[in-house]
Amino acid sequence: MEFEVKFLPEGKRISVPAGSTVMSAALRAGVDLANICGGKGFCGKCLVEVLDGNVPPPTDQERKRVGEEKIKKGYRLACQLTVQEDVTVQVPEQSRVGRQRLVIMGKEPPVALNPNVKKVYVEVAPPSLHDPEGDDVRIAKVLAAMGLDPVLIDYEIIKKMPKILRDGGWKVTFTILNNREIVNVQPEDRTKELYGVAVDIGTTKLAVFIVDLLDGGIIFAEGIMNPQIRYGEDVISRIGYASQSDENLKEVQKAIIDGINSLIQRGLEETGIKEEDLYELVAVGNTAMHHLFLGLDVKWLGFSPYPPVVGRAYNVRAKDLGIRINLAGNIHMLPNVAGFVGADAIADILASRIHEKDRLILLMDVGTNTEVVLGCREGLWSCSTASGPAFEGAHIKCGMRAASGAIEKVKIGDDFEVEYGTVDGEKARGICGSGIIDAVAEMLRTGAIDMSGKIVLQGHKRVRDGIDGKEFILVFKEETASGREDIVITQEDIREVQKAKAAMYAGYMTLMRKSGFRREELSEIIIAGAFGNYIDPENARIIGMIPELQISKISFLGNTAGSGARMCLKSTDVRREAESIAKAIKYVELAAEPIFEEEYVNAMYMPNSKLEDFPEVTASVKAPRVVRRYVRR
Amino acid sequence: MEFEVKFLPEGKRISVPAGSTVMSAALRAGVDLANICGGKGFCGKCLVEVLDGNVPPPTDQERKRVGEEKIKKGYRLACQLTVQEDVTVQVPEQSRVGRQRLVIMGKEPPVALNPNVKKVYVEVAPPSLHDPEGDDVRIAKVLAAMGLDPVLIDYEIIKKMPKILRDGGWKVTFTILNNREIVNVQPEDRTKELYGVAVDIGTTKLAVFIVDLLDGGIIFAEGIMNPQIRYGEDVISRIGYASQSDENLKEVQKAIIDGINSLIQRGLEETGIKEEDLYELVAVGNTAMHHLFLGLDVKWLGFSPYPPVVGRAYNVRAKDLGIRINLAGNIHMLPNVAGFVGADAIADILASRIHEKDRLILLMDVGTNTEVVLGCREGLWSCSTASGPAFEGAHIKCGMRAASGAIEKVKIGDDFEVEYGTVDGEKARGICGSGIIDAVAEMLRTGAIDMSGKIVLQGHKRVRDGIDGKEFILVFKEETASGREDIVITQEDIREVQKAKAAMYAGYMTLMRKSGFRREELSEIIIAGAFGNYIDPENARIIGMIPELQISKISFLGNTAGSGARMCLKSTDVRREAESIAKAIKYVELAAEPIFEEEYVNAMYMPNSKLEDFPEVTASVKAPRVVRRYVRR
Repeated sequence: MEFEVKFLPEGKRISVPAGSTVMSAALRAGVDLANICGGKGFCGKCLVEVLDGNVPPPTDQERKRVGEEKIKKGYRLACQLTVQEDVTVQVPEQSRVGRQRLVIMGKEPPVALNPNVKKVYVEVAPPSLHDPEGDDVRIAKVLAAMGLDPVLIDYEIIKKMPKILRDGGWKVTFTILNNREIVNVQPEDRTKELYGVAVDIGTTKLAVFIVDLLDGGIIFAEGIMNPQIRYGEDVISRIGYASQSDENLKEVQKAIIDGINSLIQRGLEETGIKEEDLYELVAVGNTAMHHLFLGLDVKWLGFSPYPPVVGRAYNVRAKDLGIRINLAGNIHMLPNVAGFVGADAIADILASRIHEKDRLILLMDVGTNTEVVLGCREGLWSCSTASGPAFEGAHIKCGMRAASGAIEKVKIGDDFEVEYGTVDGEKARGICGSGIIDAVAEMLRTGAIDMSGKIVLQGHKRVRDGIDGKEFILVFKEETASGREDIVITQEDIREVQKAKAAMYAGYMTLMRKSGFRREELSEIIIAGAFGNYIDPENARIIGMIPELQISKISFLGNTAGSGARMCLKSTDVRREAESIAKAIKYVELAAEPIFEEEYVNAMYMPNSKLEDFPEVTASVKAPRVVRRYVRR
Repeated sequence: MEFEVKFLPEGKRISVPAGSTVMSAALRAGVDLANICGGKGFCGKCLVEVLDGNVPPPTDQERKRVGEEKIKKGYRLACQLTVQEDVTVQVPEQSRVGRQRLVIMGKEPPVALNPNVKKVYVEVAPPSLHDPEGDDVRIAKVLAAMGLDPVLIDYEIIKKMPKILRDGGWKVTFTILNNREIVNVQPEDRTKELYGVAVDIGTTKLAVFIVDLLDGGIIFAEGIMNPQIRYGEDVISRIGYASQSDENLKEVQKAIIDGINSLIQRGLEETGIKEEDLYELVAVGNTAMHHLFLGLDVKWLGFSPYPPVVGRAYNVRAKDLGIRINLAGNIHMLPNVAGFVGADAIADILASRIHEKDRLILLMDVGTNTEVVLGCREGLWSCSTASGPAFEGAHIKCGMRAASGAIEKVKIGDDFEVEYGTVDGEKARGICGSGIIDAVAEMLRTGAIDMSGKIVLQGHKRVRDGIDGKEFILVFKEETASGREDIVITQEDIREVQKAKAAMYAGYMTLMRKSGFRREELSEIIIAGAFGNYIDPENARIIGMIPELQISKISFLGNTAGSGARMCLKSTDVRREAESIAKAIKYVELAAEPIFEEEYVNAMYMPNSKLEDFPEVTASVKAPRVVRRYVRR
């Protein structure tokens, strides 16, 4: 038995079997609806308003996350609400994933061009009665004279080759992949049209770059939200969804491939480049993103010891994946390290050149998963921390992404009055990652919270008791875009920030201990990640997300994962470098390290329970000291 | 506007646009209907009886091939008859291609096994928290310890690999193609199951062999008619059909691939082997068959200088062609030479070892196209002659394939009385290739015809005037299966035999002249081809199809094309040998050789106008000498 679910305001309708959730209907109908926790009813972000149709009573999760009052008004969680007759629901603006403010560019060192594809223009002798050899033999002779010996001709190409040779009067351009295979034949001299695609598949965002392989120039760059977000905001949720069945895995894979194809399509339209002239695509992502892109079984990525299916560099044909570049084109995946430390970490290293540095560098690629790399010429250590989506505005009561109206900068005065800046200067709608870090750092600096994160300010109009305990009012409702609700930082929100930053810092400390380096040796901190560009380094240091180093030694390189992908697209030498980095880098599985637990608990304090490691911060903040050092049993 | 064509007795119905031919309807409906000339109305074999529906007046071709009397009774040619309203037609038995007597085995020299696929059983260390590397890295380590370094893992395989590794307790069998790519992973020790497929794609017949790659044994062998026959009996007709549109090409390709798949399927059912354990398929055929199998553009194969698209060995994935072996399996095509001399000629040489012989050998692979190879260790020369389907019973008034009831042996007494033998000892239904050669040779021996092929016997009950001139009655109608019509050899039939044998002999003579060898140097004649097994060597010599050599020096090796394909399946060393033969062999394009024309005209006489080259034959036959030597202008 099937019932129809209608989504407003878009008016999309879809029939689903009785007992299906409204979320599954939204997924199938392609309705933009947040699904951060992967349908478990934890995040409460998929709120919908039931306008028509009888619905079953609310679940416990709904009572908890939505509250009786809102439930009475018809609000429910789409992931919990099942269908028992035709229903119409309204999807409010705050339940949308929506278009986001995305940073996709990153610093990229110069690379000597040596791409995996080359074009050559040749004039082939046409066959005659006295020289009737096969087309492929004639071509091989001409190419051999140029020192080229492609032993393969792609099947798609050989089917169209004879006509093109003759239509082109035997003057044609060949594209050769990996000095081994002819992957295109075009009439006339088309050697000037040689392009590739670099892709950074972030857990949250997807960035696509089209690169001219003759001069290395970026001619198109665009980002969108990773369309897989509808299957869960974090990697664990997505792994859970994709592991349930082959169909689910294919669905999640299709989402990212469709997303990449749509960006490529946009790029082709904007630049006038032809699809057939995109010959290679190099993609990076953490291990989960890597696997979901390739459609690999991710079941075991979700369980200790989290082994990836593919660790080494992997090549697959565009045709096999359904990627819309030249059919015979190649998809190159950079090597993964282990656990969730994937090809993106290798790309970060390639772009930041840590492996060539004489002095010790700490790199954090901040995202829903944060990759932490510590090292220099002498050696590299890496780990991955599930820092969570707090810095991306999720798991935060008034959290939102860095879209219009998001509070991105916060200053709190000594009188606890608040100054703030929003994205696009719009009226405040919520608070995004950098705003949250600012707010918590400022509360710490002014003493509105103590070092354990507890809100200690009392008797001030900005502090009040909310449903989840104390909360600090950043913006009173009169000033907000909606005009209906205050924008607050709750005690729970502060706890989320503490957990996220503690994970990162403890990751760093664990690598420090495992590598045998000393704290004093750390010469530089690099913050990477699209998100990283907006963080105030001072405040990151105040909350103890990063170790206390001079501000001038902290740099932001932006989306270095994308940079590393472009570098590998431009040069096979860099690919070899990537493989040797992957072989050399030591992976530290935090779940196996008691040090990590110890440092995590210490780092739950702000800046840390080891105050001696943060002397400047400790001296500058008014937050009461309530730290307790963790002692391992 | 569409009309329905109904075919009896099968009762198949199909709707086609007004103006379509009944032949095109039969092709689309999959009705078995002979189409020897490719729909030009020349061969007259697609006779159908119109039972219901008004039809347009007959074409000139129909008047010529069917005759007014039969037309009055409702008989028409399916390729000429167009549809203008719903029609019902009866397809008589003689218009069927039907099941044929096929010879598919051939002589095969021993080959040291060294196949392109290998299986290894390994026990892989499972990942642990302290050794969490990727599955592929773990496998690479185990294989490296065995001296193996497959740098690729097929995309289909990597998707299923992690589950099989774990389900199999990390004890698995890998299949490695070309020492380069993992193409299968199976739980437990499956090293005993390693099979391949060899395919000989003849213009007329298709033979499929399943070979055990561990011991080289043939465990299944089966032949069917090449299903492409419905698109034309000879290569030129098929090229014409396939060149008309991409759809036609795909249709012709699909026919052969479906045919191969059906034979493979039958083999799997009979042997209990699993599809996934067939890892490679090696196919041979003449250039046109090679191209139509791969779906390559054959347009230029039909025009001088007949250059193939692919001359070198070619590899393509089973998946790309839709061949039902292991998805990641490889299809290997042996190299072509040039013109129509294809991979089958290379296979013939591999099986007959001509290239290793000290003394000069002539090889003829007799078929609708006959490949002629002349040579020895010192060098190889080759050409292809369009000998036509006469020896396969086509273009012959009472011709039929070597099916039940076909006359395959003929003896004519000095009183012109006829003794004959039929396939399966059934009542005579027609005459097949070996019977035609016998009949013509016997007529020559007894003097019923003269050396120009003219029927000179007069005033005997076996000779009469038919529609197409004189004819010799082999079997009176009372003795035939139908009981209705005499089985005759017409003057036209003799002409067809002369044309076919003249083409072969002239091909041989042209190679002889081009190579510079002397006639006396010829030490052996090898007749290959499925058809060849049934030819009486004495009679082949009498009609001058082959040069006059001692009968003991003439051998029949059977289907050596299939043998060569199996040899290459079993050993990559033989593949290298094939490539060096392909490079070394000299191709002679007969269309460019005036010698060919000269020798062809001389060879139209039987045995030849150069009687000095056939002293024994000349002495033994009673046929009047009316030969005239051709002199080139």
